[in-house]
Amino acid sequence: MTSSLSLSSKNYSSWSLRGWLMARLAGLRFDEVIVPPDDADARQEILLLSPSILVPCLTHDGIKVWDTLAIGEYLAEVHPESGLLPKDRAARAHCRAICGEMHSGFSSLRSALPMNLKGDFPGHKVWSRAEGDIARITAIWRDCLETYGGPFLFGEKPCMADAMYAPVVTRFRTYHVKLDRPAILYCQQIMQMPEMKEWFAAALKEPEDIEELDMEF
Amino acid sequence: MTSSLSLSSKNYSSWSLRGWLMARLAGLRFDEVIVPPDDADARQEILLLSPSILVPCLTHDGIKVWDTLAIGEYLAEVHPESGLLPKDRAARAHCRAICGEMHSGFSSLRSALPMNLKGDFPGHKVWSRAEGDIARITAIWRDCLETYGGPFLFGEKPCMADAMYAPVVTRFRTYHVKLDRPAILYCQQIMQMPEMKEWFAAALKEPEDIEELDMEF
Repeated sequence: MTSSLSLSSKNYSSWSLRGWLMARLAGLRFDEVIVPPDDADARQEILLLSPSILVPCLTHDGIKVWDTLAIGEYLAEVHPESGLLPKDRAARAHCRAICGEMHSGFSSLRSALPMNLKGDFPGHKVWSRAEGDIARITAIWRDCLETYGGPFLFGEKPCMADAMYAPVVTRFRTYHVKLDRPAILYCQQIMQMPEMKEWFAAALKEPEDIEELDMEF
Repeated sequence: MTSSLSLSSKNYSSWSLRGWLMARLAGLRFDEVIVPPDDADARQEILLLSPSILVPCLTHDGIKVWDTLAIGEYLAEVHPESGLLPKDRAARAHCRAICGEMHSGFSSLRSALPMNLKGDFPGHKVWSRAEGDIARITAIWRDCLETYGGPFLFGEKPCMADAMYAPVVTRFRTYHVKLDRPAILYCQQIMQMPEMKEWFAAALKEPEDIEELDMEF
């Protein structure tokens, strides 16, 4: 049975990127089902109004799973060898804790620095509440890189946590956010992943029929 | 080694209730560590500004786990017999999906109807965006109760999803939200849980030194 994953804009939808990365890291073969950005639900997600149950949504083995964390947990169960979750219990708990922080938090960062892979905004003024989010995120990264030795958050290979934070890396790049050295190295590591290069290339080719969305912030 | 769980207000903190219920459903023995509501982080959480990494936070076996979903996953690993997660793979994926929806979504409901166990507000006007959240939540419940036969969301015993939605049940009660019959029966089921009765009794006895918090909405 063919697996599929629903996605919306590759340029704007951070949840799509997270779900897609997890599926790729799990080694899953799947079809991409693009939900048009004028779909009400996809639109709500891109406008940061609410998470969507349409995007990302994984169909696998007759089972439909929505919500990015649930997709990650499902993939980790189906493909435990992929390392989506760390093998060590304490590291796994740590991984889930920081995935959870990204899943429910950092709303100031999300609204101040929306994902926009085509964008390049040097000199963008970062709102002070977003500064707090940036400080917390880089502290999370520093802690992980020191504890597990890098170059990814939980060691040698990318895992669920790297997928959760990958859109943040693109935001730091798009808005030229000043970072400390460990964070810069980590961002470079993420940007060099073949999966990220593939996603970026697709995002840059995406037609701009949803430019209007960008205007509404 | 003694386990502990950090909590803030039992009257106001919905995340504390979720984490505490999960720990009780897992059959864990633990000390409660109350984080004063004037602590900056606990305050932010109660004021719905941001999730807190202080509350709830579980310490078990030398491992510190924060974020409610991460705590639930951890407890399900340590006590798989507790049924915190459904045994069937498809049901488990479904459970995680709706836990994820609660974890990252329903922000209109949260701000329109903040948890307040002591409160009783008949005739409270529900903001229209919160109506959409209420409709989605009751649809989630209906779907689960029909699929798994009730009386809890995934069958005979309460699981992680019931813990995630328990604070919503109290909100519906506090603000006299009109519900359909399946939702009313489900709310009664949750309110009759011995753990809920215990939490409620403690919340009602909580001193009102944080009344001021309530004023800032």
